[in-house]
Amino acid sequence: MNKKKIFNDPVYGFVTIPTELLFDLIEHPYFQRLRRIQQLGLTSFVYPGALHTRFHHALGAMHLMSLALRSLKDKGVKISAKEGEAAMIAILLHDIGHGPLSHALEHSIFDGVPHEQLSLYLMQRLNTEFDGRLDLAIQIFQGSYPRPFFHQLVSSQLDMDRLDYLNRDSFYTGVQEGRPGADRLIKMLTVVDEKLVLEEKAVYSIENFLVSRRLMYWQVYLHKTVTSAEQMVIRIVQRARDLARSGQEVGASSCLQYFLSRPVSIREFEADDSILQRFVQLDDYDIWGAVKQWATHPDKVLSYMASSILNRHLFKISLQAEPFDEDFKLGVTELIAEHFQLPTNEAALLMLHGRISNNAYDAVGETIDVLTKRGRVVNVAEASDLPNIRALSQRVEKHYLCYPKEIM
Amino acid sequence: MNKKKIFNDPVYGFVTIPTELLFDLIEHPYFQRLRRIQQLGLTSFVYPGALHTRFHHALGAMHLMSLALRSLKDKGVKISAKEGEAAMIAILLHDIGHGPLSHALEHSIFDGVPHEQLSLYLMQRLNTEFDGRLDLAIQIFQGSYPRPFFHQLVSSQLDMDRLDYLNRDSFYTGVQEGRPGADRLIKMLTVVDEKLVLEEKAVYSIENFLVSRRLMYWQVYLHKTVTSAEQMVIRIVQRARDLARSGQEVGASSCLQYFLSRPVSIREFEADDSILQRFVQLDDYDIWGAVKQWATHPDKVLSYMASSILNRHLFKISLQAEPFDEDFKLGVTELIAEHFQLPTNEAALLMLHGRISNNAYDAVGETIDVLTKRGRVVNVAEASDLPNIRALSQRVEKHYLCYPKEIM
Amino acid sequence: MNKKKIFNDPVYGFVTIPTELLFDLIEHPYFQRLRRIQQLGLTSFVYPGALHTRFHHALGAMHLMSLALRSLKDKGVKISAKEGEAAMIAILLHDIGHGPLSHALEHSIFDGVPHEQLSLYLMQRLNTEFDGRLDLAIQIFQGSYPRPFFHQLVSSQLDMDRLDYLNRDSFYTGVQEGRPGADRLIKMLTVVDEKLVLEEKAVYSIENFLVSRRLMYWQVYLHKTVTSAEQMVIRIVQRARDLARSGQEVGASSCLQYFLSRPVSIREFEADDSILQRFVQLDDYDIWGAVKQWATHPDKVLSYMASSILNRHLFKISLQAEPFDEDFKLGVTELIAEHFQLPTNEAALLMLHGRISNNAYDAVGETIDVLTKRGRVVNVAEASDLPNIRALSQRVEKHYLCYPKEIM
Amino acid sequence: MNKKKIFNDPVYGFVTIPTELLFDLIEHPYFQRLRRIQQLGLTSFVYPGALHTRFHHALGAMHLMSLALRSLKDKGVKISAKEGEAAMIAILLHDIGHGPLSHALEHSIFDGVPHEQLSLYLMQRLNTEFDGRLDLAIQIFQGSYPRPFFHQLVSSQLDMDRLDYLNRDSFYTGVQEGRPGADRLIKMLTVVDEKLVLEEKAVYSIENFLVSRRLMYWQVYLHKTVTSAEQMVIRIVQRARDLARSGQEVGASSCLQYFLSRPVSIREFEADDSILQRFVQLDDYDIWGAVKQWATHPDKVLSYMASSILNRHLFKISLQAEPFDEDFKLGVTELIAEHFQLPTNEAALLMLHGRISNNAYDAVGETIDVLTKRGRVVNVAEASDLPNIRALSQRVEKHYLCYPKEIM
Repeated sequence: MNKKKIFNDPVYGFVTIPTELLFDLIEHPYFQRLRRIQQLGLTSFVYPGALHTRFHHALGAMHLMSLALRSLKDKGVKISAKEGEAAMIAILLHDIGHGPLSHALEHSIFDGVPHEQLSLYLMQRLNTEFDGRLDLAIQIFQGSYPRPFFHQLVSSQLDMDRLDYLNRDSFYTGVQEGRPGADRLIKMLTVVDEKLVLEEKAVYSIENFLVSRRLMYWQVYLHKTVTSAEQMVIRIVQRARDLARSGQEVGASSCLQYFLSRPVSIREFEADDSILQRFVQLDDYDIWGAVKQWATHPDKVLSYMASSILNRHLFKISLQAEPFDEDFKLGVTELIAEHFQLPTNEAALLMLHGRISNNAYDAVGETIDVLTKRGRVVNVAEASDLPNIRALSQRVEKHYLCYPKEIM
Repeated sequence: MNKKKIFNDPVYGFVTIPTELLFDLIEHPYFQRLRRIQQLGLTSFVYPGALHTRFHHALGAMHLMSLALRSLKDKGVKISAKEGEAAMIAILLHDIGHGPLSHALEHSIFDGVPHEQLSLYLMQRLNTEFDGRLDLAIQIFQGSYPRPFFHQLVSSQLDMDRLDYLNRDSFYTGVQEGRPGADRLIKMLTVVDEKLVLEEKAVYSIENFLVSRRLMYWQVYLHKTVTSAEQMVIRIVQRARDLARSGQEVGASSCLQYFLSRPVSIREFEADDSILQRFVQLDDYDIWGAVKQWATHPDKVLSYMASSILNRHLFKISLQAEPFDEDFKLGVTELIAEHFQLPTNEAALLMLHGRISNNAYDAVGETIDVLTKRGRVVNVAEASDLPNIRALSQRVEKHYLCYPKEIM
Repeated sequence: MNKKKIFNDPVYGFVTIPTELLFDLIEHPYFQRLRRIQQLGLTSFVYPGALHTRFHHALGAMHLMSLALRSLKDKGVKISAKEGEAAMIAILLHDIGHGPLSHALEHSIFDGVPHEQLSLYLMQRLNTEFDGRLDLAIQIFQGSYPRPFFHQLVSSQLDMDRLDYLNRDSFYTGVQEGRPGADRLIKMLTVVDEKLVLEEKAVYSIENFLVSRRLMYWQVYLHKTVTSAEQMVIRIVQRARDLARSGQEVGASSCLQYFLSRPVSIREFEADDSILQRFVQLDDYDIWGAVKQWATHPDKVLSYMASSILNRHLFKISLQAEPFDEDFKLGVTELIAEHFQLPTNEAALLMLHGRISNNAYDAVGETIDVLTKRGRVVNVAEASDLPNIRALSQRVEKHYLCYPKEIM
Repeated sequence: MNKKKIFNDPVYGFVTIPTELLFDLIEHPYFQRLRRIQQLGLTSFVYPGALHTRFHHALGAMHLMSLALRSLKDKGVKISAKEGEAAMIAILLHDIGHGPLSHALEHSIFDGVPHEQLSLYLMQRLNTEFDGRLDLAIQIFQGSYPRPFFHQLVSSQLDMDRLDYLNRDSFYTGVQEGRPGADRLIKMLTVVDEKLVLEEKAVYSIENFLVSRRLMYWQVYLHKTVTSAEQMVIRIVQRARDLARSGQEVGASSCLQYFLSRPVSIREFEADDSILQRFVQLDDYDIWGAVKQWATHPDKVLSYMASSILNRHLFKISLQAEPFDEDFKLGVTELIAEHFQLPTNEAALLMLHGRISNNAYDAVGETIDVLTKRGRVVNVAEASDLPNIRALSQRVEKHYLCYPKEIM
């Protein structure tokens, strides 16, 4: 049977699944689950086209990986068929442990178990199922494979993950300025001492990539209305969880119910396989199905927020450079308490505050490196005539405060 | 407050909401519900980008309507601000009564209540809420307004609905050949005797539009894998409904439960407002949430199909011009019965068969008309040098038969 | 030295030149000349973006050839590196003997020497220069290579030439409906008995391709204003030629002068190398440079037409299904004679008439063939449910008559 | 007669010519001449798709102006129909005085007469022809109209000229990262105290615009191969001019001959109308026609360079931050002298050197201003969290040296 399937991708055109193993992994229920998890969570409240899934993102990243590998091979980098497949598996499965909706829910549903850790568990589970054929992919994913450029293609400041999500997110939001110029960047990749670098002439493309990425952060990922919606959902789930853990009935699908009703530590995940089996049932439908139910829950905080988010009746959000004043927050809480006839401690739950921040380039950690014409490898921020890449590494922070529109 | 909002549409770029009333209708929970109903149902199983919603389609159709109205006004057609707004409302709300997933569920959930009828009910309800400001829009929607071209822009063989869905569906599936050439067609619209016609030079564009539309039918809407998936979901819901109506417990959200457990006629819809209130709670999440639950239901037929669709383990489908032979169907049923250890009557439920058909152009009913240079209005099929538009009006039919892969 | 160059193509993105020989051929002055010959001649008078050259088209066709070869190889068709390069050379050079501006000038400058013949001469000349390394390419170009599918990829009703020019012309004109869907068609190519066929599921794509092509004919290539402009240029060159051959001074570059002042038969081309050397000097700049000079020529017919075309003061054109009446043409000639104060025989030169025609599909000659699921190879026009492909094979003819606007 | 013509623009889709006066100006031979002047001169040697003309650019800039005016009117800025038309005329004609090929030839053909000055002369001439209907447009073009924002839309650091040329140049080169995000920027324009400002949320879009523009400079406009080709053409024309002025015969069209054979000062342009009449004959065809002739000129320097550029046999170019050493240049000259058997003074003509430089943002002159939420108007470089806009205002300079490949 020919498993070399082709699928349509509005972003890249026709995309080929290069090997049978990749095809079988895509068919696996663990991977199919990603069809039910949107890449951008609540963003479609602002950008109604942004409904694409982690499934499609993972396929796209695999496609970019195949282009990057071909480009490197054309430049004489030796890459075996086995290595190539492993790199594609690693990127295909990099998000397989992602929970529903957004990163944000990681903290309200699982007690601080990062999705990368869960991705690794699931890859190991798949490795067992596939008789060890994911060994190399797992090494690449973890960064233990002796040729580090493979890991860098999967996870670094210029990896195929980022290139695909920026491409895809800018495509589906319609924010065309956010396109990272992936084609050109990929053509300029090369390998020096088994590390990933870019040809020197790529500096303008790198700068453009960083600026596009920053634009996507402030225009999309941290858009004020998106932030408000995301914080609302986080609070909704937290409230449901707290009610559940205090013994109240909160309707939810059985797998969501499970995670709401008890804290699950990383150790328990490891020890008890049934927890992972529940986890791989969880998707956006569980969250939205529950939110729909909660819209009529007797708890006023829960039902108010749930019905608000359902009908896109979003909280008003203020942003500022400084943290919000305690007195001001107190005042807001009081207005909420009065308007909704709630005790202060519950009113406080209808005020959401925190901090969003982003730096376009991390010039200190694992940098983006450039190979100069004279053969030196340097951090792109040190390329002489680009003072603004350094400038891009400054972290920008904003404080937000959200509250129901009705109170003012 | 300035309600002239702009939103991003990857298909058209920036789209403006032209009036406050339109803005308020978009904000209404009835319309927000369309965010939770995908335009193409199960199609994303084949075209993973095709996740767009009826919400976005409705906004896009409103946008095309605004372009069409501007184009007509530029040609001297008198259109008042009130008429223009009404036409945009009519197209904005044309699908507001659409049920979850696909057209197909209309028959398994509601007993033959067409969604156009439900759209009309909801428009009337909104009209009451908005103090009669939808009167004119409803006349246009129903076709009772004395200037028929408005209705034709909303509903005809070349309406803004079709132009947007072809544009949007081809964009999100990545089937670029399906683009209808909306820009050019809209520029060539004109009005003669209050009826919509196209300038003669549009004939090639019309032909292209019809061929693109046909291509979309066979390549997307009636794609064999999509057909298989859709028929599976219909059967799943039917099975759940039949179990429910025979008194068995089938988990589902309360609003879906309601419609599963009893037949609701059009008359009851009209008579009992609470039914409509339940209806506007229904969306794709209810269906998918239920399917997830049903994957572990004690009924073997239900759970087998539900878990199959969840993991994209789709039925094999055969297509042919002739109906399938009764003996052949009997044989398939027996194989199913044997493989799944099911009584014949239940095995028969795991075989899906029926007919799909399409004609690209209906040359008999309300035709697409062209204004010749000599001032005559003629059916485009009669334009002299286009024998193939006539050819396009031939209906093509195919018979399908779907069954579990495992049996053969 | 690494000659594996990449160039940017707005139509396809990055395009790689696959071998050194191809690179060297592109660098050759014969091929560089194609930079100075626009693909669509006068079309930019109607579609101002349509300025692309035969140089870019040839590179694009080479790119599509490389995609087609990869697709065929993926399906198991054995293609050696040498064959692949030869096929790419054949398509790269297929138009190398094209004269300036449009096909039309072939008849006014060279006495009926078709450009395919000149392409062959130039390929043979290059073959000598490149020590016989073009042998195989020439066989493929001529159709004498025993594996006919290579020739079909270069020249047939669904060759890479057509796919690229439709893609490119629709892109640069902005007539998006003219896109042929090349990606999908190429993915569906296969080879049976060494002949090119398409998988059966391609029928909708083929139909769409034919309809798009027809649309491009009537909307672009045979657009009435384009036809008028092209006929004007042909007449201008004919007039200059007739003046030159009757001994009058007409300014022109030396190579153009040469061809204006004497008829050159195909035999002379073959016999006298210096003629070919003059030919490869000729490009659009010679024509336009001459037209600019002729705008002030003492011959009234020549200068009127030359200055008219320069300032886009185009002749009015009428189109009709029947030939124009002799009496009507006489009347027009008289009006011209009167208005321009010209003797009748010269006035007749300011009236242009003739016939344009097109059939989207030639169902009789070398057909487009489809491989049915049952393994039969059939003409696409016979595929059962597509009556309109047959309809598309009908030839449509129109008669035109052009004359100066001023006379009526 | 309806002059509201529509034309196709691959960049923007359908573009409407909004008034009859605009239509008549477009039809005028002065404007039609721009069809024969490419926007990017020699750039097509590197980016083969970049063949678009100043004609198309001017139409595109007019289109963006119409969008900008509509956007401002939607925000309540009062703009009369007369002002709107004048602004569109001003942008339509802003380049009407542009000479052939690139800016660079301004210095070799005309002795330092900037094209803006020539544009103004031609606009004044047209104003006479059109009975003073261009008065207001000329005021806007010159910046003397009391509402400065109109002039800023025509000429400033964020004018419609730049937005169109970046859009168009990135489109036709295929350098997609160079897209300036014109749609979004235009939606964010507003007017404060009759000056053009942008809403505060535009800062990311402005940064992206500046970075895109810088990328276009280094990747396209100042690309090393493009620079080499441009400098070659400049030197060719200079050589021909020097030969002509020293009394030697150099073939050229009569209008080019005129400007080669004598220096023409701005004062003479003003005083003698016939000079302007000659100027409006000049276009790219004159230059290329002459280069073709010069390829066989007896002067070795001229013929070597002319035939080199014709066959894209370009000079090698070196770039460095520091000026090139005099000794090095001497050495290169000697190598040239030896290789070509030329006296040193002529050999020196085959070495081209100079400086290219660019700053993405001029933070000192007329700045891009932003309206903060608190109602203050500030230079975008001072917006708090964007240190890199300041960084973008640093000027980057490079020194180049070009010489024939053969010598090394």
